[in-house]
Order: sequence, then structure tokens, then C-alpha cells
Amino acid sequence: MSLDAVLARIDADLPAATDRLLDLLRIPSISTDPAFKADCETAADWLVADLTTLGVKAEKRPTSGHPMVVGDVEGAANTPHLLFYGHYDVQPVDPLDLWDRDPFDPELQETESGTVIRGRGSSDDKGQLMTFVEACRAWKAVNGTLPCRITFFFEGEEESGSPSLVPFMEENKDELKADIALICDTGLFESAVPAITTMLRGLLGEDFTITGPARDLHSGMYGGIAMNPIRVLSKIIAGLHDETGRITLPGFYDGVPELSDEIRSQWQGLNFDHAKYLGDVGLLDPAGEDERTPLEMIWSRPTCDVNGIWGGYTGDGFKTVLPSEASAKLSFRLVGTQDPDAIRNAFRAYLEGALPEGFTVAYRSEKGSAASQMSIDHPAFEKARQALSDEWPRPAAYVGCGGSIPIAGFFKDITGMDSMLIGFGKDDDQIHSPNEKYDLESFHKGTRSWARILDALV
Amino acid sequence: MSLDAVLARIDADLPAATDRLLDLLRIPSISTDPAFKADCETAADWLVADLTTLGVKAEKRPTSGHPMVVGDVEGAANTPHLLFYGHYDVQPVDPLDLWDRDPFDPELQETESGTVIRGRGSSDDKGQLMTFVEACRAWKAVNGTLPCRITFFFEGEEESGSPSLVPFMEENKDELKADIALICDTGLFESAVPAITTMLRGLLGEDFTITGPARDLHSGMYGGIAMNPIRVLSKIIAGLHDETGRITLPGFYDGVPELSDEIRSQWQGLNFDHAKYLGDVGLLDPAGEDERTPLEMIWSRPTCDVNGIWGGYTGDGFKTVLPSEASAKLSFRLVGTQDPDAIRNAFRAYLEGALPEGFTVAYRSEKGSAASQMSIDHPAFEKARQALSDEWPRPAAYVGCGGSIPIAGFFKDITGMDSMLIGFGKDDDQIHSPNEKYDLESFHKGTRSWARILDALV
Repeated sequence: MSLDAVLARIDADLPAATDRLLDLLRIPSISTDPAFKADCETAADWLVADLTTLGVKAEKRPTSGHPMVVGDVEGAANTPHLLFYGHYDVQPVDPLDLWDRDPFDPELQETESGTVIRGRGSSDDKGQLMTFVEACRAWKAVNGTLPCRITFFFEGEEESGSPSLVPFMEENKDELKADIALICDTGLFESAVPAITTMLRGLLGEDFTITGPARDLHSGMYGGIAMNPIRVLSKIIAGLHDETGRITLPGFYDGVPELSDEIRSQWQGLNFDHAKYLGDVGLLDPAGEDERTPLEMIWSRPTCDVNGIWGGYTGDGFKTVLPSEASAKLSFRLVGTQDPDAIRNAFRAYLEGALPEGFTVAYRSEKGSAASQMSIDHPAFEKARQALSDEWPRPAAYVGCGGSIPIAGFFKDITGMDSMLIGFGKDDDQIHSPNEKYDLESFHKGTRSWARILDALV
Repeated sequence: MSLDAVLARIDADLPAATDRLLDLLRIPSISTDPAFKADCETAADWLVADLTTLGVKAEKRPTSGHPMVVGDVEGAANTPHLLFYGHYDVQPVDPLDLWDRDPFDPELQETESGTVIRGRGSSDDKGQLMTFVEACRAWKAVNGTLPCRITFFFEGEEESGSPSLVPFMEENKDELKADIALICDTGLFESAVPAITTMLRGLLGEDFTITGPARDLHSGMYGGIAMNPIRVLSKIIAGLHDETGRITLPGFYDGVPELSDEIRSQWQGLNFDHAKYLGDVGLLDPAGEDERTPLEMIWSRPTCDVNGIWGGYTGDGFKTVLPSEASAKLSFRLVGTQDPDAIRNAFRAYLEGALPEGFTVAYRSEKGSAASQMSIDHPAFEKARQALSDEWPRPAAYVGCGGSIPIAGFFKDITGMDSMLIGFGKDDDQIHSPNEKYDLESFHKGTRSWARILDALV
């Protein structure tokens, strides 16, 4: 049994695999900070060198930002062509004083809930990326070759908005087109329940300032007669949801699908503890639409949130100013086929219609992204789900994801390729925060999972 | 005619009077900044010395902050006892780079609208304070004595919240009790229309933070299920006014009087150009209650304004945070006999009733002040109004004032004394702002106005 041999090889090689990951984690490849540009190059070089040891033709490919790493290895006839995506860049580390150790001096630590790999990037995404590479390494050690044609595609700008990603994919779409993409940048549903993420919400941001009076006014002289931009802004925000939690913009729910009966019953079977999910962050009541379950709210319903608001005097004490301006940052999470442009237009029509005469608004825009909905009809999905179920204590689930991982949409739009999002992160990994960690179990069973999935797909 | 001689003396002495004011303006008596403590002492000493030249027994009286200046001069039998109040401290001068010259190197400047005295404190309040002192000086030069018993009371903490004022007044209330107080810290209604301010709005501030989630959340993971404190705060603020502009707090309008027919018809006669008042600051529509005139909105109706709001991410770009907290500073302008404590209670009951379960609120409170309403039945009011009407091109008006000048309320509460608020500032004096000025005409005709008022009252 070739698979058993590969799994045994993974078990035996775990200490060496962990050392390799620690080595990669020592490179401070923070993509958003220009001071770490050379480190991003170093991380890309490290991956090229490592892939080369697997017989992969790998190279660093320049962009106007940080380089892509692209590798390719041929496979036998009648085997599929897989593409594997991960990212080698990491989040900044501040506030540094909240870390218990140097974020780039990673180590294994024993904790109450098991051994963890502590360090920036351990979970997001170097540790996850290496689960796939280590599965390939073990496969090759046992079988002499990789199981099929595989294209490796590692990005170095995921944590800084991926400015080079779409141009690079468009320029190289023939090279990047495979039968299916495997993306390792998501999490387990629970410790014992692996997951394939099939729904990703899209994201639309609106950052704007409304201006009323031409200058800040004294509320003694103008209070009661001059309309206050903060009051106007508050009314606009308050009007975005109705009493039942629905978003009020005309046409907002166009393209929002109802769950299929299959997905609905599977999610019910997950017995999601929403009281604990909210209770862990100090909340009691879910805020979403009436008559929607909490998992629906997070995974499959669109949202509108205010991420920031500011205006007037915010220092100590009082200043009876009636401010000229008020500002907010809003974001919409999108699902199904909701159109970011149409929603932007609906929002702006609503906002501008709510402005008193003489008020103006200035927008600081960024492009929105639509939601991604994987079609689980592709046979690879059921094969992968079975493979994951074989590795973990409980069967794998098809889940949604409240966040936005635009890469899956880009693969679909640019190459026509479906994506399977499979990852082994946990909710307590503290990605983007101090003391990021990745469970050694995630790393070990994640590597074993990919070996099983590769075996199932070829 | 003694009055004519006094007025002639004022005219002849204007250059010397202006020089004295420039001398006082050179002292940077910024009360809020401890670095200028010695300068506040110097300004108080300057005033003690100047009053002494008028035969006034004046002295600097220590407080736990900046000193008070108290002076007293006896008067003939059967003459009234007047108290005159002004303040010798000034606002800070930043942003300094917006001044056209050193704020404490004052000078006369010719402008399109006439000669102005440019410098910090020229209008607020040293120039105004000196109009009364110069009227006394001319009176004494002509008549050998002042017209009646006068108590001079100059404060050095008006621009920094007057922390010593009430304790000092309570300790010295017998000394400070006169027949009526004259306060020179307000403005003309228009260039040609002098005013006696008979209504001052009170002020209640509420500075608070509401907390929902125990920590900042990722809107991808919690958006749609966790209630967003900014959304809660916006709804609270939006709910404070109804569609007609009325404030919705239960009992809020208790103690808000309707205008007397006399005042209403007088205000109508002012032909206030509200379109210009709003147009000057870039606004079109008045924001207050339907069916109230703009002057009512500013002078005689209570208000609720948001002076500041903040929460979540406010830097460049997007951060899809669902914040733990949101904060605001609100202020209520109060009129009539509205009770600041009752309104605070009503506001907090409303706010706390609007919080979702599990949310908390923390207040950073300051004491509120009730409105002041002068009783114009005191005969001094009509005498002063006639005197002002004699000096200026158009008759004097009884007006309201949107701002809050607590001193008048303190005089009433502590000594039982009524106050007449008479001043000669203009809307474009830029008090509290760079390039503060006082029209030479305000200084000159203001001094003449006080001579006429003194003559009318004795």
C-alpha cells in the first residue's frame, strides 16, 4: 500500500519537516513594510531551493512588488493536473510588546492543549503551505516521483492586498491553468472536524467623508440651526438596517441564494454552539437577520458593518464644536452573485439622498470583490472530503467562510478553474495578532491529509 | 452737561486709551497653560495698578488657580451700587502659523471695514473689559469722582473653566453683592445694533463609551452575527431627534418657556437674515425644529449636538475590524428652567435602554449648568437700553445668546443679583481663533456706551 508507506514516511520525517518550517519562519517576510523587501526575496529563494530538491522546475518570477514563486513538475499520462496555492508573506508583528518572544525566532512550545509551533506566519500561511510541500516530499521519497503534474504557485503579497496577483495571473494564465486548484489558507471547522470551504463572502468597502458647514462651528452660535454632519452620518448608518436586521438598500438581496437542502441539513448537523461563539467574545445576542441561524449569518448571508467612524473633537474634556465633517468606513460582505458595483451604486444613491441640501460627500474608494461559490459537483470535492474524513476523528464538512479570499474567484474568472479550499488552522491560532501559533497536530495531520487527498485524486 | 463732557473726554483720550489696551494685550495671560502662570499674575498686577490710578481700592486676591482682581470705590448716597465683571485671561494661540503676526505683539490695522485692534484678547475679553475702565477714567477726569459705588471683579480663569470662581464668590459673597452686575463679554447684534443679552443657554455634556464585544473582532468571522457598537451608537444618536427636529428624550421640554409676545415681536423686528447666517458657513437649510424661527433656534430653544464621535479603525485604507467600542461626546444647550440633572438622567435611561443585552457604557461626566434668563423688569434694563440706543445708529435689542456664560447664573444663585450682559464684540472678531481683532469702533463706542449707561443708572 503506497499511501500507508507515504503516511509512515510523514510520521517519521515530522521532526525534520518541523525544522524546515522553523527555518522558513525565521525569514521576516512582512510584505506590507518596504523595510522587509529583501526578506521577501529571501523567502521566495528559500522556496525555490526547496521545491528544486523535489525535482520541481521552480523559479522566482519578478513583479512590480514582491516576486511570485512558480514551480512545475510533470506527471504521468491520465493523471490530473493540480495547482497548489499558498503565500509566503506574513503580517506585521506590532504591537511587538504583546509577543512573549521574538516573532521571528520560532520554537515548539508545550501548551495545555498540545504542542504548538509559535511564530509569525506559523499558521498564516507558511505552516499551511508547507503541509502540501511536505506531503509531496514524502510521496517522492517513497515513490520516486510526485503523483501527478503539479504546478506550485506561491504569492508574496497576500497580506498587503495582492496588487500584482491579477496582472500576473492574466499574463501567465496558460501556465497556471490546471484541472483544479488546491488552496491551503483556511481552517478546520473544529479540532476534530476538517472542512472544505465552498463559500467565500465577497467584500466591498466604502470610505467616505460628508461635509456640511464650511468650517467647524461653535455649537453655542450655531447649535440648533446648523445641521450637524455627525447627526446626519448617524442617521445614514442607523438607516442601513431595518428592525429585523435586514439591510435596507434597494436591490441589496438580489443574487443572494437560499441554502440548498443538502447544505442546510449538513450545517444543522454541525451543532454549532453559537452561544459559546458569541460568549467567548462577551456577547449574548446574535445581531443578524431574524429567522436566520448563526452559521447562515456568518457564512451565507451578506452583511454591512461599520469598521470605523470619526468626526469632531475626540480629545479629553469638552469642546463645543459643531464639526464641518464626519467620516466612516463601511464594509459589505457579499454572497452569491451580489454585484459589488450595483451595491456601491445603491449605497451611494441612498447616502446622497439622505444628505441635507448643501452637504457634499467625498469617497475614498477601493475595488470590491464578489463572493465565490464553489460548485461541489466537481468529483474532486467528494474524493477530497472522503480523504479528509479518513484522516480526522470526524467526517469532513463543506463549510462557508465569512472572510474574503479573493484568490478562488480569480482562479475561476481568469483560468476557469475551480478551487478547493482546505486548511488546518484553528480559531485560536491568533493569525494577524501577537503570539501566532500553529498546532503541531495541524501541521502533522495536515501533511497526512494532503497525502491522502493526492492519493484520492490520482 | 456732564455726560457730554465725559463723552468728549473719551473722544480726546482715545489714542491714549488704545495705547493702554495694547499694553495689556502684550501680556500673554493664557490661563489654561501652566507655562503662562506668571503672565496671568502680571496681567492681574497691571489691572490692580490701573484701577488704583482711578482711586479704586484694588487688590489681587489669591485662589488655588490664577488670582482674582477685586476693586471697590465708594459712591455718593442715593446712588446705586454696581458690580462690573470681565476677565483678563485669554485663549491659547495655536495654531500659531495661521496668525499673520505675533498674537502678543498687538497693533492697529486698517482694514476694508475699518480700523481694528489685532491681537489675542483684543475682543475676548481685555478690549471689552477696558471699555468700562476707560469710561470710568473719563468720568473721573471730568467729575473728580466715579458716578457711584462700583465693585470691579476681574477673573483670570474664564478660558479654562473657571475652577476657582464659584468657591471665591461663595467665600466673598457679601463683598460681591451689588444692586446689579454689568458683564462685558458679549457682542453687538449687528454692527449698528447694540444688544443686551437676556437669555443664556445652559450646557450639559455627556462623554461616553459603549462596549460590546470584549475585543476587536474580524468582520469576516463575526460580521453578521456580532452586534457592532458603532451601529448601536449611530442608532442611539439618530433616535435623539424625531422627523420634525424635536428632541425625543421624555421630559426634555419640561421647563422650556414660550417667548413672550413682546420679545417675539422685537425679534421679528430685527429682520435676522438667517439665509446669510447659514450661507456664510456654507449651509442652506436650518436644522432645528419645524415651525421655529432661526433666531428662536439659536437663542431660546434647547438643542442636542454631537461634538465628537469615534470608534474602530480610522487610519488609511481598510481594516475589516468589528470594534469592541464606540464613543461620543454630546452636548445639550438648555433654556428656561430645564434641569440639567433630570436631562442627564433621561438621556442615560434612553441610552441604556437602547443597548443590546451584554453591552455596557462608561461615562466621563462633567457638571451641567442651567440656562440663565434675566428678568428685564429691573428698571436698569430699560435705562441701559435707552442709553445704548442713544449711542448707536439703531435702537438696542434684548437678545438671546446660544452660548453659555455661567457667570450670570452664579451671580443670581450666590448673591441674588441680576446681571446685564452688554458687549461690543462682532461675529467676525475671530475670538478663540487666529488673528483675533476688536474693531476700534467697538472699543470707542463701547467706552462711550458705558459712560451713557453710568449716566442713566445714577
